[in-house]
Amino acid sequence: MSKIIVATATPAATKRWQEVMQAALPQFEVVAWEPGIAPSGARYAVVWSPPDTVFQQETKLEAVFNLGAGVDAILALPSLPDIPVYRLEDAGMAPQMAEYVIHGLATLSRGFDAYVQRQREASWSPLAATRYEDWPVGVMGLGKLGSYVAKAVAALGYPVAGWARSARNEEGIEVFHGADQFAAFLSRTRVLVNLLPLTPETQGIINQDLLLKLLPDAVIINIARGAHVVDDDLLAALDSGRVQAAILDVFNQEPLPASHRYWSHPSVKITPHVAAVTLEAEAAQQISERIQRLERGESVSGLVRRETGY
Amino acid sequence: MSKIIVATATPAATKRWQEVMQAALPQFEVVAWEPGIAPSGARYAVVWSPPDTVFQQETKLEAVFNLGAGVDAILALPSLPDIPVYRLEDAGMAPQMAEYVIHGLATLSRGFDAYVQRQREASWSPLAATRYEDWPVGVMGLGKLGSYVAKAVAALGYPVAGWARSARNEEGIEVFHGADQFAAFLSRTRVLVNLLPLTPETQGIINQDLLLKLLPDAVIINIARGAHVVDDDLLAALDSGRVQAAILDVFNQEPLPASHRYWSHPSVKITPHVAAVTLEAEAAQQISERIQRLERGESVSGLVRRETGY
Repeated sequence: MSKIIVATATPAATKRWQEVMQAALPQFEVVAWEPGIAPSGARYAVVWSPPDTVFQQETKLEAVFNLGAGVDAILALPSLPDIPVYRLEDAGMAPQMAEYVIHGLATLSRGFDAYVQRQREASWSPLAATRYEDWPVGVMGLGKLGSYVAKAVAALGYPVAGWARSARNEEGIEVFHGADQFAAFLSRTRVLVNLLPLTPETQGIINQDLLLKLLPDAVIINIARGAHVVDDDLLAALDSGRVQAAILDVFNQEPLPASHRYWSHPSVKITPHVAAVTLEAEAAQQISERIQRLERGESVSGLVRRETGY
Repeated sequence: MSKIIVATATPAATKRWQEVMQAALPQFEVVAWEPGIAPSGARYAVVWSPPDTVFQQETKLEAVFNLGAGVDAILALPSLPDIPVYRLEDAGMAPQMAEYVIHGLATLSRGFDAYVQRQREASWSPLAATRYEDWPVGVMGLGKLGSYVAKAVAALGYPVAGWARSARNEEGIEVFHGADQFAAFLSRTRVLVNLLPLTPETQGIINQDLLLKLLPDAVIINIARGAHVVDDDLLAALDSGRVQAAILDVFNQEPLPASHRYWSHPSVKITPHVAAVTLEAEAAQQISERIQRLERGESVSGLVRRETGY
C-alpha cells in the first residue's frame, strides 16, 4: 500500500491531520511523522512548517502538499527535494480573510472604536456618516485570496484597487501592475491590505519608502507575512501619525515577543496569526482530490513556481 | 412652477435636503419647511420625521417621499393625508447594514474582543478556529435590506436562514415564512438579526417568548426599530446568560436616556442609530427619478401599503 507522510510543527496537529487525511484517502496508509521515526518510503508528503529532517529521511517523495497558501517557510528548507510542491488555494481561507479585513476596516471607517468609548460615557453622539470615497482600499497581491478580499470590500462601497505582477481584469477593481505602476497604486491608497506571497522581491516591501507614498491617515492591514514589514519604519510612521493605524496578524518573529513595542502601541491592533485558519474539511478535500488526480496522471492546480517563490 | 416641500426634524437637515433635491430637480421649486412658514401649495413632500403641522398646512400634496426605509413614524401622524407614501428602497443602506452586521458578528465569532484583551496582556494566544456551523444566523425580515444582509453573511460561510411573511426562494438562504414556521426559524438560530418593519404586528416581537426559543449563547443584533424589543425581557435574558450579547443600534427612546441600564451592561454594545445612514446622492437620485416618473404618469416602486404598515 502506498504511503503518505504527514509532518507539522506540533505532534497534536500532525496526529489530527493524519486522521483527517487517512479518512479522506483510505486507499493510502497515512503515517504521522515524529522525531526518531524510521523513513516511511512515502510517495506524498502533507506538511505545515515541517522540520528539515523530514526531507532528509523521505527520499521516495513524488510531491509535497503544503497545508497553507504561503510556502516561504517550506521553500527555505535546505533538504526540500526538487519535486512538485503544491500550496492550498483558498480552502476556506478567502472568506475568513475578507471577514478579518472588513472587521478591521469598519472598526476605523465606521467609528466602532469611538462608539465603544462613547458608550462608557453614556454619550449618544452619532459621528458624521462614513464617506466611503474617503477610504480607498488597495490590495497588494491579487491571487485567489487577494482577489476575493478586494471584491468583498468593493461590494460594501469602498473604492478598491489591486496591485498585481501582471495586467488583468477584475470586475469592480482598478488593477495596477508591475513595478512601474506601484507608486500610482500607493498614491491613491489609504487602506493598504497586504496579501502578497513572501519572496526575496517582496520581503521588507512595507518600508518607509512605501509608507510615505500612501494617502494621509493611512491604515496598514497585514495578513500575509511579518517579513513583508520593516518594523522600525512602520513604528516611526505610526509615531509620527503619518499612518493612523496598523492591524497586524503576522510578525517577523512569532509568537511576537512580549517586549515588542507593537503590543502597547495605541495605534496597533494585534491578532496572533489567525486571520485565516486552514479549514480541515476543505483542505483535506482539496489535497485528496489532487493526489487522486496525480495518481491518474492528470494535472492539478496550485503548483508552486520555484523561480518566483509562490 | 410646481413646488416640492422638504421637512425634517432639524433646520440644518431640512436646508441640506432642500439643496440636494433642488439640484436634482431644477424644474421644480424646492421649499424648505420651517415653523411659521405659509402653506406652499407643494405637490410633493420629501420628509424625515416631519412635524404633523406640515400635513395640516400642505393640502395640495399628491405624494409623500420618506427619506428612509422605515415609515412607522410618518404613518403615525394624524394629519397624514390619504395619498401615496413612498419609502426609500436600499439607497445605499443595504451594504452599510451588511457591514454593521458582519462587524458585530465577527467581533464575537472570531474573538476580536478577546484579542483586544490579550493584547493588553501582551499575550500571544490564538483561540480555536471559528466553527462557522456553530454560528447559525437568522435574519427576521427579508425585504431588500434583509435579503442583502442575509446573502452577505452567508457568503462568509455562516449558515443563514431568513424569516419572511410569505414563502420565497433566496439563493443560499433557508427561508422560513409565516407565523407557523416562526418557532422552527428561532430554534435553529443563534444570532438573530432584526430587519423587520415596525408595525402593530411586529412591535415587541423580541420578547421573553422569542428569546427562550433561540439557541443557547444567543446574540441579538437589532438594526430595525427599538420598539421591536421588550427591553426588560432582553435585559433579563442577558443577565441570566441565556443571551450572550446584544448589539443595539435602535431604542424605544432615542437618544437612549443616560440612566438606561443598556449603557453599562457588559454584554450590550450600543451605537446611536447609525447602522445605515441615508446617503444623499443615492436618495436624491431615487426620489427625483420617482417624481419624474409620476409626472409622466408612470408607476413607481416603494409604495407603502397602509394595511400592512410598510
